[in-house]
Parts: sequence; C-alpha cells; structure tokens
Amino acid sequence: MNPDDFRVNRLGGCLYDNPMQGISFTTDKDAVLYHGMLEEIKLLLDDGQVPPAFDMAGPREKIFFDPSTLSCGIVTCGGLCPGLNDVIRSLVLSLHHHYGVKRVHGFRYGFEGLNPAYYHTPIELSPKVVESIHQKGGSLLGSSRGPQDISTMVDTLVNLNIGIFFAIGGDGTLRGAAAIAAEVKRRGLNIAIIAIPKTIDNDICHVDLSFGYETAVSESRHSTYAAHVEAVGARNGVGLVKLMGRESGFIAASAALANSEVNFCLIPEVGFTMEGLLKALEKRLRQRGHAVIVVGEGAGQNLVSADLGEDASGNRKLGDIGLVLCDEIKAHFKAINMNLTLKYIDPSYMIRSTPASAYDSAFCLQLGHYAVHAGMAGFTNMLVGHWNNRFTHVPIPMAVLHRKRVDPAGRLWSSVLMATGQPFDLT
Amino acid sequence: MNPDDFRVNRLGGCLYDNPMQGISFTTDKDAVLYHGMLEEIKLLLDDGQVPPAFDMAGPREKIFFDPSTLSCGIVTCGGLCPGLNDVIRSLVLSLHHHYGVKRVHGFRYGFEGLNPAYYHTPIELSPKVVESIHQKGGSLLGSSRGPQDISTMVDTLVNLNIGIFFAIGGDGTLRGAAAIAAEVKRRGLNIAIIAIPKTIDNDICHVDLSFGYETAVSESRHSTYAAHVEAVGARNGVGLVKLMGRESGFIAASAALANSEVNFCLIPEVGFTMEGLLKALEKRLRQRGHAVIVVGEGAGQNLVSADLGEDASGNRKLGDIGLVLCDEIKAHFKAINMNLTLKYIDPSYMIRSTPASAYDSAFCLQLGHYAVHAGMAGFTNMLVGHWNNRFTHVPIPMAVLHRKRVDPAGRLWSSVLMATGQPFDLT
Amino acid sequence: MNPDDFRVNRLGGCLYDNPMQGISFTTDKDAVLYHGMLEEIKLLLDDGQVPPAFDMAGPREKIFFDPSTLSCGIVTCGGLCPGLNDVIRSLVLSLHHHYGVKRVHGFRYGFEGLNPAYYHTPIELSPKVVESIHQKGGSLLGSSRGPQDISTMVDTLVNLNIGIFFAIGGDGTLRGAAAIAAEVKRRGLNIAIIAIPKTIDNDICHVDLSFGYETAVSESRHSTYAAHVEAVGARNGVGLVKLMGRESGFIAASAALANSEVNFCLIPEVGFTMEGLLKALEKRLRQRGHAVIVVGEGAGQNLVSADLGEDASGNRKLGDIGLVLCDEIKAHFKAINMNLTLKYIDPSYMIRSTPASAYDSAFCLQLGHYAVHAGMAGFTNMLVGHWNNRFTHVPIPMAVLHRKRVDPAGRLWSSVLMATGQPFDLT
Amino acid sequence: MNPDDFRVNRLGGCLYDNPMQGISFTTDKDAVLYHGMLEEIKLLLDDGQVPPAFDMAGPREKIFFDPSTLSCGIVTCGGLCPGLNDVIRSLVLSLHHHYGVKRVHGFRYGFEGLNPAYYHTPIELSPKVVESIHQKGGSLLGSSRGPQDISTMVDTLVNLNIGIFFAIGGDGTLRGAAAIAAEVKRRGLNIAIIAIPKTIDNDICHVDLSFGYETAVSESRHSTYAAHVEAVGARNGVGLVKLMGRESGFIAASAALANSEVNFCLIPEVGFTMEGLLKALEKRLRQRGHAVIVVGEGAGQNLVSADLGEDASGNRKLGDIGLVLCDEIKAHFKAINMNLTLKYIDPSYMIRSTPASAYDSAFCLQLGHYAVHAGMAGFTNMLVGHWNNRFTHVPIPMAVLHRKRVDPAGRLWSSVLMATGQPFDLT
Repeated sequence: MNPDDFRVNRLGGCLYDNPMQGISFTTDKDAVLYHGMLEEIKLLLDDGQVPPAFDMAGPREKIFFDPSTLSCGIVTCGGLCPGLNDVIRSLVLSLHHHYGVKRVHGFRYGFEGLNPAYYHTPIELSPKVVESIHQKGGSLLGSSRGPQDISTMVDTLVNLNIGIFFAIGGDGTLRGAAAIAAEVKRRGLNIAIIAIPKTIDNDICHVDLSFGYETAVSESRHSTYAAHVEAVGARNGVGLVKLMGRESGFIAASAALANSEVNFCLIPEVGFTMEGLLKALEKRLRQRGHAVIVVGEGAGQNLVSADLGEDASGNRKLGDIGLVLCDEIKAHFKAINMNLTLKYIDPSYMIRSTPASAYDSAFCLQLGHYAVHAGMAGFTNMLVGHWNNRFTHVPIPMAVLHRKRVDPAGRLWSSVLMATGQPFDLT
Repeated sequence: MNPDDFRVNRLGGCLYDNPMQGISFTTDKDAVLYHGMLEEIKLLLDDGQVPPAFDMAGPREKIFFDPSTLSCGIVTCGGLCPGLNDVIRSLVLSLHHHYGVKRVHGFRYGFEGLNPAYYHTPIELSPKVVESIHQKGGSLLGSSRGPQDISTMVDTLVNLNIGIFFAIGGDGTLRGAAAIAAEVKRRGLNIAIIAIPKTIDNDICHVDLSFGYETAVSESRHSTYAAHVEAVGARNGVGLVKLMGRESGFIAASAALANSEVNFCLIPEVGFTMEGLLKALEKRLRQRGHAVIVVGEGAGQNLVSADLGEDASGNRKLGDIGLVLCDEIKAHFKAINMNLTLKYIDPSYMIRSTPASAYDSAFCLQLGHYAVHAGMAGFTNMLVGHWNNRFTHVPIPMAVLHRKRVDPAGRLWSSVLMATGQPFDLT
Repeated sequence: MNPDDFRVNRLGGCLYDNPMQGISFTTDKDAVLYHGMLEEIKLLLDDGQVPPAFDMAGPREKIFFDPSTLSCGIVTCGGLCPGLNDVIRSLVLSLHHHYGVKRVHGFRYGFEGLNPAYYHTPIELSPKVVESIHQKGGSLLGSSRGPQDISTMVDTLVNLNIGIFFAIGGDGTLRGAAAIAAEVKRRGLNIAIIAIPKTIDNDICHVDLSFGYETAVSESRHSTYAAHVEAVGARNGVGLVKLMGRESGFIAASAALANSEVNFCLIPEVGFTMEGLLKALEKRLRQRGHAVIVVGEGAGQNLVSADLGEDASGNRKLGDIGLVLCDEIKAHFKAINMNLTLKYIDPSYMIRSTPASAYDSAFCLQLGHYAVHAGMAGFTNMLVGHWNNRFTHVPIPMAVLHRKRVDPAGRLWSSVLMATGQPFDLT
Repeated sequence: MNPDDFRVNRLGGCLYDNPMQGISFTTDKDAVLYHGMLEEIKLLLDDGQVPPAFDMAGPREKIFFDPSTLSCGIVTCGGLCPGLNDVIRSLVLSLHHHYGVKRVHGFRYGFEGLNPAYYHTPIELSPKVVESIHQKGGSLLGSSRGPQDISTMVDTLVNLNIGIFFAIGGDGTLRGAAAIAAEVKRRGLNIAIIAIPKTIDNDICHVDLSFGYETAVSESRHSTYAAHVEAVGARNGVGLVKLMGRESGFIAASAALANSEVNFCLIPEVGFTMEGLLKALEKRLRQRGHAVIVVGEGAGQNLVSADLGEDASGNRKLGDIGLVLCDEIKAHFKAINMNLTLKYIDPSYMIRSTPASAYDSAFCLQLGHYAVHAGMAGFTNMLVGHWNNRFTHVPIPMAVLHRKRVDPAGRLWSSVLMATGQPFDLT
C-alpha cells in the first residue's frame, strides 16, 4: 500500500472557526494505522517505509464552509439497508445543531432525484421532519438503482446552491459520487462530495464494518431458527436459508457463528460441488436426522445456469442458488429412495427492511456526525470508513478498488468451519 | 342445531375421587350456550326448543381412570403450529402433578409413530423432559402428514396399555382420532380419545379460537411491516405478502386489522377478478405511490391453473396465488408502461415455527389441563374447544362437519374493508 | 340484572344516511346476550324474564350528525396504557375516511386540556398527523390524572362547537364523562359523549376485555423471565416481580398462566398471610432451590402500613407490597440462617409504555371504529365494550357500578393454582 | 508499555499434534499491535523501541495436553451477564468436537463449587447437556460472589485431575484465577488456568470488548424508550433510567448513542453537581417540556451518603444515585413551584438476565473456541481478550492493573455530548 493513496482531497483552506468550541478536535496528525499485526509493521520498517494510515475522522478546529449560508443535499441509492434513516437523521441533526446549517435537501428515489426529468421534488429536511424516522426501516427519501447523467446531477447541485452533497450507497453509488466529484473539480466548484458506504453485505474494501450489516446478521436469526425448528420437526428434515451476499459471504458466515444450529454454510468465496454437498448432507442426515443449510446468494454460481445479464445497478444478475439447491437435494434423495422434508426460507426483504439494531443505531449516528465534520472541513471525494475501532476518511478510489471478501484461509472462515462442523472441503 | 349433537360420549361410570381436592370442580350442569345473540335465543324459545349448549370443560369430582396404573400417549400431526410444545408440556405436567400419572409416551412424527413399520421409539415424557420445551417452536415429538392404518394404531395403544390417547392435529387428525375412537369402541376397549384441535388457520368449526392462531397473526406483522417499508422505499412500490389460510382467510383478515399498512386483503371466501384487483391497485398507486397487498394462500384459486391433486394429508394442493399475482401485476404495469417495483414475501415457515406468544402460551396451558381433566373423567371422541370465553367439550363429529370460514357479510370482513379502505367489490 | 339498565341513551332521531353504503349495518335488534351459560338462561326463563342483552356496536344505516359540519374532540386521561395511540388514530381515520368528518381536536394532557386555565392548545388531528402514531407507545395527546370542573369543560366543548366528544380513560374518566353527559343534557345540547374504557388492569365491569391488557400480560414475560433466570442463577435464588393490578389481579393471574416459571401468584382478591407465604416459600426453596413470585400491586395491602391517602385520580394510594415482601423475606431467611438471594423487579413503566401488540392493535382499531359509529348515530353517555367476542354499547353507569375482580372460586384462579402448584391457601 | 508484560506463560513444551488438521493454525509470530495510531508507533520507533503486541489467539499446531486423558473444569462467578451460557456451551463443544476431550466438570455457584464445604456436586457437561443452553439467559452453573480459599480450590482441581481450568468472571475472579495459577505453579502442577473476562460494564483493561456488553446496550433500549414515552406523556415529564456501570460509564454512554431520546447522560468518569444538573434540566423542560436522563450506577457518588462498605465480591457498595436524583429533582421543582412528573426505571436485572444478542452469541462462541485452543496449547495465567478486531492472549496481571474507563477527552464522550446536546460541563 502506498501511503499517498490514503490521502483525502480537500477543497481548500479553512477560514471559519468550528462553532462547537469546547469539544475535542481532531487534527491532521491523527492517523489510524492501516496494519494491525506486528509482523506487517516490522516488514515495512525493515524496508524503510512509513506505515500507511487513514486520516482519522472527527471535527476540525477550522472549517471550510460558512454554516449561515450553506445548503446541503442528501441522497440514498440502491437496495434498502437497516440504518438508512438513522444516517439521514444524524446528518440533518448534526448539520443543524452542531453547525447551524438550516437548509438540507433530501433527494427522492436515489440519483433519479437529481435528474429533473423525473420531477421528484426534494424533501426539505428539518429536525422536526427527521425526529422519529430512525424508528422505521427503509429510507425516508426512497431509493432506486442505477446511474444518471453526471453533468445533469452537477447542474442540479449548482442550481440548488449545494455546498456539501452526501451520497449514501454501495459500490455503484461510490463510483457515481467519484464521477460527480471529478466533474465538480473540472468545473472548479466548491462542492464537497462525502459518501457513506451502504452495503448490507459488508463488502466495501478498506472499511472493516458498514452499517446495517450487524442488524442483518442479527435478523438472520429468525430464519435460521425457523429452519432448525422445521428441520427437527420432520424425519430427515432439512431447513435451507438463503441470505444476502452477492460476492462476499460475510452475512452467511457471521450468521453461522451467531446461530448455532447451522450445519452447512456456503459462501461465494469457497467453492463446492453438488456431489460434495449432497454426500456430506446425506451423511449428516443418516447420523443426526436433520440439517440446516445457510447459503449466501452468490454462492455456487457455477451450478446455476448461464449468463443472466445485469440489473439496473450494473450488478451481474444471479441465478437463484436457493432454488437450485432445493431441486438438486430433492432429486438426489428421491433417487436414493430416502424420504426427506425440505423447507426453503428466503428472508431477504424482511431482513433489509428492519430498523437498525442498537449497535447499528449508534454506529449510524456516528457515521452521520463524522460525515458532517468531514464535509464542513472541506474534505471531498471521500467516504467515512471504520478501521480498528476508529472512524476514518477513505478516498473513494481506494474503496472501489475491489470487493472485500471472506478469506478462505483466514480466521473468520476457520471459525465457521469449527462452529458448523462441516467438512473443510465440499468439492 | 340439535342439542343432542352437543353431547360427548363417555367410557363409563367414574369410580375414583379426583385427587385435586380443594379445587372448584365442574359439573354436568355447567353448559356453555351455543348462541350469543338475543334474537337467536328468542327464536328458539318461540319455537319451544331448548337452547343448544356445549359441555363446559373442567376437572370433574369423580374420575374414570386410576392414576396409579394409567399410561397415556400423545401425538402431534400435520404442519407445525406455534404452541405445540406448550400443549405437550401442559398435558405431561397436568397428568403428573395434578393426577399423579407417571407414564406418558410421546409418539414420534405423527401417526407414523403408532405404526411399528416406521421403527420410531416413543419418547418417555417426564416433567424433566418437557420442562423447557415451551420456549422453543415446533414439536418435541416431530410431526408428519397423512393417515395410518386405524387397526394397527389401536394395536399399538393396546400393546402399550394406553388409557388416554391425546391427538393434537387438524381436520385430518380429528377424523383419524374419530376412527380410532370407533375402533376402540368396536373392540370394547377402555381407551379415551381426546383431541386438541391444531389449526393455525383457525378454521375448525364450533371452536371459536384455536391455539397458534394469535401467534401467527402477531408474527405476520414482521412481513407486512417489511412489505410496507419496501413499498414506500420505491416509486410505485408494491409489497405483496402471502399468509396462511388454505380455505379460510382468518389470518389474512386479522393481519389486515393488526397491521394498519395493509391496503388490499384477499381471502378465499371473497372472490375477486384479476381485472378488478389491477384496476384498484392502479388507482391506489396513482393516488398514493405505493401499496401493500396481503393474500391468503387459498384466495383466487380460480386464477391459478388446473387441478394439482392432493398432499399427504389429503388436502387439495393449491396453486401459488402469490406467484400468479406477481406475474400478473408485473405484466399489467409493463403493458401500461408504468414503472413498478414489486417485492414478494412468503413468511409462512418463519411464522409457524415461532414459539407461542404469551396469549397462546396461557391458552395452550389451559387446553392441556382441560384435555387431561376430560380424559381422566372418561370422556372420549371429543376435542377441547373454546366458545365465548369458556373452554368446552366438542364431539369430534361436530368439529369436522365443515370448515369455519370468514363470513363476507359479517363483522370481521366489514372491519377489514373499513381498515384497508379497499373497494367492497374487486370483481 | 334489569334489562332496562342495558339501554343506551340517544340524542335524538337520525336524519342522515350513513355514507358507507354497501357495508353491513347493525340494527337495533342486534343484541348480545349478557349470559353465556345455559343454566343462567333457564333460570331466567323459568322466572318469566327476558334475558338481558347489550346493544351490539356497529355502523347504523341512519346517523344523527351531518358529517360536513361536525367537529369532534378526543381526550386521553390517567396513566399510560398500550394502545392509546392506536385508538386515537382509529378514531381520526374513521371519522375522516368513513364519514368525511374534517375537524378533530385533540385535547392535551387529559381533562386539563379542556380547562382554559392550563393554556393547552388542542392538536388538530388530521390523517397525516396520526398516520404512524400507532407504532409508538404512550399517547400523542399526553395525559394527566384528576378531574376538572365539569361546567368549564362543557363550555370548552360548546366554544369549539364539538358534536362528539371521545373520552379515553379509566374509572375516574368514565365518571367524569358521565358528569359531562349530564351537564350536556341539562343544557339541552346535542353533544354525544362516547367513552372508550382504558384500564390496563382489565377491571371495568360489564366489559370482558379492555385494550392494553393483552399487551401488558405479554410484556410481563420479560420480567418473569428475568426473575426466573436470576432465581436459578443463585443458591436459594428468589425472583420477585411486582405487576400492575390495584384492585384486581387479572394481569398477575394471566402472567402466571403465560409464564410457566411462576411459582407463587399473589393478587388483591385472594388473601394471604406473611407466615403462610414464608412457610410455603421455605418449603419450595428446600425442595427446588429457587422460586419466582409474582405479586399484583394491590395484593396484601393489610400487610403494608396505614392509610396513605389518595392520588390525583382519587385512587387510594397503595403501600408498596413489593418492598414489604423483600424486607420480610430477607428478614425471615436471615432469622433461620438460610442464605437467600432475592432480586426484585418492578417493570410497570416499561410495560405500560410499550406499543400495542398485534392483538391489541386490531382490538383498538375496532374500538375506535365502533366508537365513531356510536357517536355518529347519536348514542351518548356510553362506552364501547366487548362481551363474548362481540363489541357492545354499555351505559356508563353500568360500567362504574363496581370493579371487575378475579373470582377466587372461578376458572381463572383455578387455572392459576394448577399452573403454579402453589398451596390453595396461603393464610 | 513494556513488550515483556504482554508475554503469556506456558506450562511447557507441546508434544501432541493438534487433531484439527486442515485448519489454519496460528503461530507465535502472529502478534496484534497494541497501538493503533500512526503517531504512537512513530514515537516508539524514534525512541528505538519494539512496538508492544499481544499474542494472537488461535489453534496451535502442537498442543500440550493429551486429549484422550484430559479432564477440564469450568466455573462462572459474580453477577449474571448475557452470554455466560454461550461461553460454557462453546467451551464444552470445542473441547469435545475439536479435540476429543470427554470429561468436563461444571462447578456450581462460582468459586463455592470448588470448596467441598458447600457440597455442590459438579455438573458433568456433555454436548447433550449444553446443546440448547445458549437460548437461555443466566448461567447453567449458577454463580456467586466472593473468593474462596485458594489452596482448597487447587486441592479440588487436583482431586478431579483437572488439566485446564476455565474461569469466567470479572475483576475479582481474574485475581482469584491468578492466585490459583500462582499456587499451581508453586506446587509444580500442570494445570492451565484460562480466564474469560466477564464484565457487563466492559471495564477490563487491555480488552477492547467483553461479552454481554453489546447485549446490555441493546437491551437498554427498552428502558430508555419507556422513559421517553413516559416523559412526553406528561407535562414536564422526566424519565430517569439507571443503567449498570459501577466505575466505568460505557453502558450509559453507548446507550445514549444507541437511543436517540436521551438528553442527559451521567457517568462516573465525568463529574457533575446537583446544581449544574438541575439548572440544565430546568432549562430543557422550559424549552421542550420533557427530558430523558440516563445515569450509570457509579455516577455522582459524591452526592450520595457516606461509606457503605463492600459487597461479597469486595466491590465498594454504591449508594443509589437513581433514588438520590429522584429526590433532589422532585424537591427542586417543588421548591420553584413547577409541576413535574418523574418516572424512575431501574432495568438492571432485566438487562443482565437476557440471552445473548446475535453479536454476542458469535463473540462468545469464538471466545470459547479460543480459550480452548489456548488451554490445549498449554498457555496459562491468561485471559482471552479482543483488540482491534482480533482475539488475543492477555496475561492476567495486565488485565487487573486498573479499570478501563471512559476518557472524558476522548471520542466516545465527544460523541455522547454531540448526541445528547447536553452542556459540556454540568458542574
């Protein structure tokens, strides 16, 4: 890692005093080590390198924008995720109460809301409007998938005289935000582009935790519980749960740790063959009479049929591994004349629409505060991240380099193998 | 109604004192009026008839069986339902603590457990074994669908020297229990057959409430909540929830009352056409931008394809109205070029596997107690029912006459129409 | 019971058509039998009496008020109770959507809100304002205890030109509403006074269920669960939970049925002595090593010290039986040199501030609808009740005759004794 | 920090192969950096020092004990904490399934269970016994406070031939475990002493997270929610919640972040005067009409009366700041003739008896696994910790140096101030 890649852009010099006098300010010296292991640091030092580090998030003593004249905008994009309303609320309340910013526009239905062609009037976000929204799932602003024309969106920001634009979304949204930041720079505008990464799959790289993920793992309990109850309630009962995880199996893996009834966990990062799975499942049923399987939606894509194209967000469409497993398992046990009862549960919409857990509420509150602090201080083309228990600034380009994925040789997957007791190799 | 139809059979005279001296005993004079409205009673009286009434459930002063030598059996049949474990536990604890009965056999996996061909060893149900099972969903005993040979099952009861046989199950199970009672009578045996009606759909006739139903309505909230959040989170968002209700729409109707976000409720008892629904849905979306639909699984069966045969319980297989609605709604709005986002949620397994709510726990506890009291007093070929706030004895033949259904001209459906605001007529 | 006592007053003839054409209307012939047992009816008939019956609640074909000019008022009084917001919401939505009534005033902080001396401006209750309030506990309007001058309150109703006044509250509120109705009649005004009984203790007579009670029983689980966990977590552990129930022990009794860990249930209606309780507790601890006690707040008042006066609602102040039990139990076991760990839990505020359960939500929705139907039809000085599965009209004087109490010789208390296994007599 | 202080003792050389061949083993080179900030590391390096680091937890390739002959013991001490049963279960299942250890003794009621004078027979912990215990709060083993004679306890370990002794408890338990380890060493025994820190207050130093804490924060929501509902339900309503936190205010601080309704957060680390608080509260009530206060139990001890001695665990007894605040607040507002309604909620037992949240379940599972790995590898006099997202080995002496406390100048407290909007200084 090149330490320079960790540097976040700023719009310019900060002239105004931060109105929160009395609070502990964060300085440019406060930087969060990228590496957490002794050996990694030793190698760098032996090599004569400076250890790379993220800027630490926090309120700065001097700020770039004049709060009395500042207008801000907020947008939520992509699929729903627990905590969206908490983040919106935190942004609005922090802008209002901490800095005295009075005008905050909430764009409707994702990037569509910045395209006048859709005629979505922004919601004026006052403290009163957002007061109780954190108690509800979903997004007050609504959401949609897919990009819009960058120049059109920047025109909208200019027309509304927006100084800080907060974009809450996933990989595609981050790329969109980076493109907006580039266009803003090209035009020489003073608009800060601050992203808050939203990925229920927890797969943004250089960010160790994203909001909504903890709630999702917690909510997964209801479905694995149901799968277990159904499995033990029938001779050779099998409960199969499909959880989120398009390219990264963090939810399925953590669900297997949080829900002790899981016997097989299948994730995109660890290959398996149908033969391997069926053989292990048959063994388990003969020994114990029931089984619970959790599968991340992106697992076993080699086992589902051909190319299905992309959705509006530009994500590759996935074949439904859950239904494929249902069919194959039923067919196999019918073929060997072993009576089996299979129950398939797909709880995705019920999970993602849930309000944020206490953990995520506190997390979202801080994400919102730190995003406001970053924007007020004139940082741009960055997202608010989290690393080793601290909140950080991450340049957007660093975050979209690749997806964060479960390491099949790492500690998380080892824990899953030890928790489920499944064979290390299902191929 | 003929008052004689309400009479429950008994095995013979009761010789033993009920050991629970000090408790208030129920007598044969305690009978629960079938009718609850003044006009109904007036009509009967004008006609010179005695008002029909159910025997009231409760401990009798004299009992038929000698607790010190009695063995009992318990079976759970059909689909899972919240409260099964509460009922099992209540039966065992009441037999043990109230009467001093020491041997209770729990048959595994439904009626299969009474057929030696399946090699299922019964579980010996002691207070220790059942102590905490009410905290879990499902059935400790497991369950299965479908009948077994009546004579074989009676042989098993005889071989195990069983005096009271408790059958917990739905319509098919009740018919099976009645057939067992007939065979027991034919052979001149002293075995009491006591049923506890299990129907999450709440559709057993002459029983105003069955266990698990309240929990199911309560749990339905998670899915209607999710449907609402998803609906408002997108332009023209539609959340569609399929709930249980094969022939009776009580769950869907009550869910619409308990969850104020429901805009359309579709049940088997009230016909609708696809045109009628689509027209009303389109109107709703144009006015409000989102909609939530709840559909009972047996609704609109005329709209799904041909005859699908029967399942192992002898229930007619249903086409999936949820998927049909998904397809038709998407097709319609595509045809009229109106962008729509539809999310479909099928929470059935998550609902039925949940532990009993507080309400159902108290209800199941009492069902179990009253079933034991009935059995100990030598009643047979009956089920423990509930009518106008009291627990009753209902002859099984009365309970399987027909399904209890939502009356489209009655108070419940009126309340649903008033709560949802949906058109009275969707044809 | 005199059948005439069941008759509800009306303001006068109904001239207007109910706008809900197409719905099933309720007629004056629809009456709900007061008695539910065969013997009771037989006795009446032998005596030549007409069985008494409640008017059935429901929309009438003709209504008294012209919706286009009608203004209504709502007030919530006394302690918080789950479902208050559901009722407020249901009233407003029914007035608006079913009848087209546009003006609904929400008085703040109980009867204070009708006294200009307090300067509480009413909240204008539109569908938008009440849209989501049912998701929150408490009362949007706020509440307070105690009466206000009747004439002053009627002046306020007149000044605001109110036609239907909905009062949601307990015993004291019902008496206040009756006094308002009397003053309205004395002045010859056309104002309908409709009450909705609010008693978390479920102790209003001639009403078999009041809203919030089911939620309270359900929520009590958290505290009895905690008491049990604490009890088994220590040698001779005792968990003591104080639940609501000033004069009637329904919550404590039902909590004992819904929470199988309860070993002793103490209610106001069933006396006990400290010696009796301590002896039984000691026996239980020696046998099982732990115990859970649930006590209704009004139980054992003979064991707490002298007269404490009345609170603002005119209710007799209760001594804290929970603290008395703590002290006495600790002292006793210290005296006999038996090491005991006692944990005392008082969950009252956490229970009563909870949002309504699904069951109560559906119940409150219907209470609100029926209250609006009753008011629109010109009924007055009545409350909306519930009897044998049907909603009823109850003259307020009938409801304040006395408190409904647990019958120590009845079925509920028998079930409690059988569930807890506690001695029938603790004196 | 001296890097040598981070070194964990081992019993001796490891001769046996770890049976979990195929899993990724942790090596002695895997060490987790103590410092997380760039500047800290720079200072060390400029000073020529090696950065201190914790041994990383994980399975070792070679193990010290022969699983086929090994017996283990488990004890839980001190107050209940969510996750105790998860940890017990994880230890037993890991010993059994991962290593093939067959004998695990569960000592009853804390250190008492190791003292024969108490006659507590240990529970034999098989996989069957612990299968479902994680679904329940509390501790299967029971607990108690206070130390026992060290030599007597070591005698018990010797008599039962125990090789690894797992002690789950707080500060006092850790000191006890260290004393046991010292005695074991003195006698030259091969018994590994592995602690798992249990502190719901999250106040063990050099451990960034302890189990049960997240669940406690999550559960605190019910009480702050209730406090808020009660506060807004009355004119000048105040909801006061006392949360755990004897010397460290982490729970109260995190509760204030997780529950957006909190207006004042009082913790032991940040002083306040009654005058300062009352003045700020009065201002808040005049502006907003209601307020929610959260107070950690150890806050404001200067405001409660004199020395109260110590409890059985040797912890200083605390005066009840909650009751003191109640009295003072009521007195103040009475004195200024301002009508106020105060509701006080103490949810401690309900919080600590709750089953572990999903997050804590996964955390406890891993703590158990890592404790077993550590013990099998012959580490001793250590605890399993967590630091910057990784599990660590921490020498017990490092963990009992002092309490971990909230830094009034740090990020957490800043976030609390920004979230509540309370004055920075309440003195």
